[in-house]
Amino acid sequence: MSQHVLIIGAVALGPKAACRFKRLEPDSVVTMIDKDTRISYGGCGIPYFVSGDVSAASDLTTTSFHMVRDTAFFRDVKGVEVRTGLEALAIDRAARTVRVRDLASGREEDISYDKLVLATGSAPRVLPVPGHDLPGVHVVANLEAAESIRASVTAGGVEKAVVIGAGFVGLEMAEALSDMWDVETTVIETAPRIMVNNLGPALSAMALKHITDKGLTVRLSETVTAIEGQGRVQRVVTDKRTIEADLVIMAAGVIPNSDLAARAGLAVSGRGGIVVDASMRTSDPDIFAGGDCVEVPHLVTGKPFSLPMGSMANRQGRVIGDNLAGGASVFRGAAGSFAIKLFERAVSGTGLTLEQAKREGLDAISALVVQLDRAHFYPGKELMTLELVVERGSRRVVGIQGMGASGDALVGRIGAVAAMMPFSPTVENVRTLEYPYAPPYAAAMDVINTVGNV
Amino acid sequence: MSQHVLIIGAVALGPKAACRFKRLEPDSVVTMIDKDTRISYGGCGIPYFVSGDVSAASDLTTTSFHMVRDTAFFRDVKGVEVRTGLEALAIDRAARTVRVRDLASGREEDISYDKLVLATGSAPRVLPVPGHDLPGVHVVANLEAAESIRASVTAGGVEKAVVIGAGFVGLEMAEALSDMWDVETTVIETAPRIMVNNLGPALSAMALKHITDKGLTVRLSETVTAIEGQGRVQRVVTDKRTIEADLVIMAAGVIPNSDLAARAGLAVSGRGGIVVDASMRTSDPDIFAGGDCVEVPHLVTGKPFSLPMGSMANRQGRVIGDNLAGGASVFRGAAGSFAIKLFERAVSGTGLTLEQAKREGLDAISALVVQLDRAHFYPGKELMTLELVVERGSRRVVGIQGMGASGDALVGRIGAVAAMMPFSPTVENVRTLEYPYAPPYAAAMDVINTVGNV
Repeated sequence: MSQHVLIIGAVALGPKAACRFKRLEPDSVVTMIDKDTRISYGGCGIPYFVSGDVSAASDLTTTSFHMVRDTAFFRDVKGVEVRTGLEALAIDRAARTVRVRDLASGREEDISYDKLVLATGSAPRVLPVPGHDLPGVHVVANLEAAESIRASVTAGGVEKAVVIGAGFVGLEMAEALSDMWDVETTVIETAPRIMVNNLGPALSAMALKHITDKGLTVRLSETVTAIEGQGRVQRVVTDKRTIEADLVIMAAGVIPNSDLAARAGLAVSGRGGIVVDASMRTSDPDIFAGGDCVEVPHLVTGKPFSLPMGSMANRQGRVIGDNLAGGASVFRGAAGSFAIKLFERAVSGTGLTLEQAKREGLDAISALVVQLDRAHFYPGKELMTLELVVERGSRRVVGIQGMGASGDALVGRIGAVAAMMPFSPTVENVRTLEYPYAPPYAAAMDVINTVGNV
Repeated sequence: MSQHVLIIGAVALGPKAACRFKRLEPDSVVTMIDKDTRISYGGCGIPYFVSGDVSAASDLTTTSFHMVRDTAFFRDVKGVEVRTGLEALAIDRAARTVRVRDLASGREEDISYDKLVLATGSAPRVLPVPGHDLPGVHVVANLEAAESIRASVTAGGVEKAVVIGAGFVGLEMAEALSDMWDVETTVIETAPRIMVNNLGPALSAMALKHITDKGLTVRLSETVTAIEGQGRVQRVVTDKRTIEADLVIMAAGVIPNSDLAARAGLAVSGRGGIVVDASMRTSDPDIFAGGDCVEVPHLVTGKPFSLPMGSMANRQGRVIGDNLAGGASVFRGAAGSFAIKLFERAVSGTGLTLEQAKREGLDAISALVVQLDRAHFYPGKELMTLELVVERGSRRVVGIQGMGASGDALVGRIGAVAAMMPFSPTVENVRTLEYPYAPPYAAAMDVINTVGNV
């Protein structure tokens, strides 16, 4: 059954849904539109492009086989038409059309659809402080923003930077500026600790010590009240001090782009995420949505939450592609697995922190273990710290967080617990987890088992 | 309730069971006996001691805090009496005594017990070929054997070596001899491929190519018929050729040490493993057994199998320690997770290979994927190969094997699937596995998800 699928948004979920659907239904027509001209890039690679680890922005827009994922690629290789520089203005669900405007010409038109996919993503939160729009103040919105930040530092005019927000993006950007470009960087965070949504106090303090040892200045429990400068940013004012800055990066979280959906009468949560069911359908069965703009069920709490990550967008995109073709694929939810590199340490986790578990009303406790990440007699072993969060009565594992020198080794342990989260694992499952053992990679009583033994 | 626990065997499971029990019941008396004088060592570290990666044999007998785990350590720190050089001759179950002989004096005595633990381990299989007992022919039995092998190579008299058996120990020893000591090493294997019990043909061929590229000579489908030499080994004769050798290592598998149990009338399987229940009790409820000498249920097939690994011994030892103290700990089985370093590659897996699955009567297929082990734009990414083995109708995952350049990254993916094995995962669980994502550690559509997408 040939049909016309229209996809709004061409970065992560859009292309995945488009390509999956075309593979299953080659005779159908797929049109993907995007406001930007740069499409299908690895947004999570932006900090590494800014740092220079990734040498060219184009590296983020190629496949692993070095093909540039541009409009010609999608047309010729994937059979998907992409129209860039096109903003979606409104959805007419009765007529099954989307009103769009060509940003260059200003011309408007209606594009009809049989099925519509909203892949509108999210936007960085811009703090409503005076001076937020001064030149030199950036958000990490897209490749253009990344190029603009990198251009500033490579030009040599940046000696001092302020990053607002000590979450993933803020810390990754702070590392990029400080480590690779030697910019004197201060991170300002309103919460009393870094990565407050992802780490408990102990691990957060360990991560903080590492990044300050590496040269970052971190100001906690401090709120930005103004950004000042003559024609260009010169300082950031907080409720406690004034900090000189040639460059400011706002990394204060993201907001789902759900306006278009809300205006079309689709269900949107109080937190701004588009509501979808397990098949990634919105409240209109002909309209799918996924990626940063939606909410998905949390595997531990069952409650909807936002998880703006490229990995989620890719998996949900595949589910949407299947279902566009009449399939019955489902996305059951997520536990919020994450990983981040902080200089010479990795931090990773899945599920709830102890604080979050208590906030959910669980009678939770946590066990913290520090142990070597492989056989203690093997060269190159390093310490790994794991904190396991458990519900007391049921002994159900509701989360785990950790920090270690070998990121691959840490992510492996967290990934093993993440893999079990859909099965409501107990502490016994962690205790007996059969992590593959050989002295170069694990310990006979591995750290992941030890934390389950506690 | 104070009781006397006697433990036969003081390498891996014995010490773990002893220490766990003493922690739970400090007033009880624990005696641990062993034939050898060297106790509580990391046997799986032997290849790394032979290679020199581990500089001293004593590194294998210390805790991670550098305390030597000798009899004084067990007595003073753990409250466990250890008597070495003592061989167990017979168990009198009615009298609850064990007849032992002091190997130095030849004196015999009876030691009584309330509860007995058999931690008798396994012995390397000695091939019954002429010349198997020539000087220069070794098995990898214990620390003494390891020291003897290392002494031979460090003395400089070894130019050519033959390793019999291309399983874990054989390949690890071959790498140690070839890579670190530049010994011209030939591996002889009767099966048509290396690691035949752990890898399918494709991955086995990839691993073979790597180790031959690194300088090993590997002879497959070839059987040793004799070992020859004047007073000392000089050559190995197979059904196809004669190979010069100054040193021979027999690594043709291990045999559970179950004689003592069998002679006491305890249930022993046809394969030689002591039969235990989930609480690690033998057919006599006052006698526990664990480690290399027992069989445990396979999580996929449900059938008992042997898994002679230090990681298993440690976990089972803890279960026995709990149950000695009146607990109700269980060991539900294992999926046979493994990992091995082969020069610059790692090989790892869990569950069944395709061949094993078919032999079990399953209608199984496998999917093989080669993909980068982290974001394709991130520096240092490497290829990883994964083969997922799935039962066709049920879509149940019955095994996964893989090879990669980053061992920690590979073991992480295999460990995540291993973690799910007790839950009978389906291919959808692998497809949606929430491996923590960040460009330095994983891909947005990670290789572990891709192999579940196939």
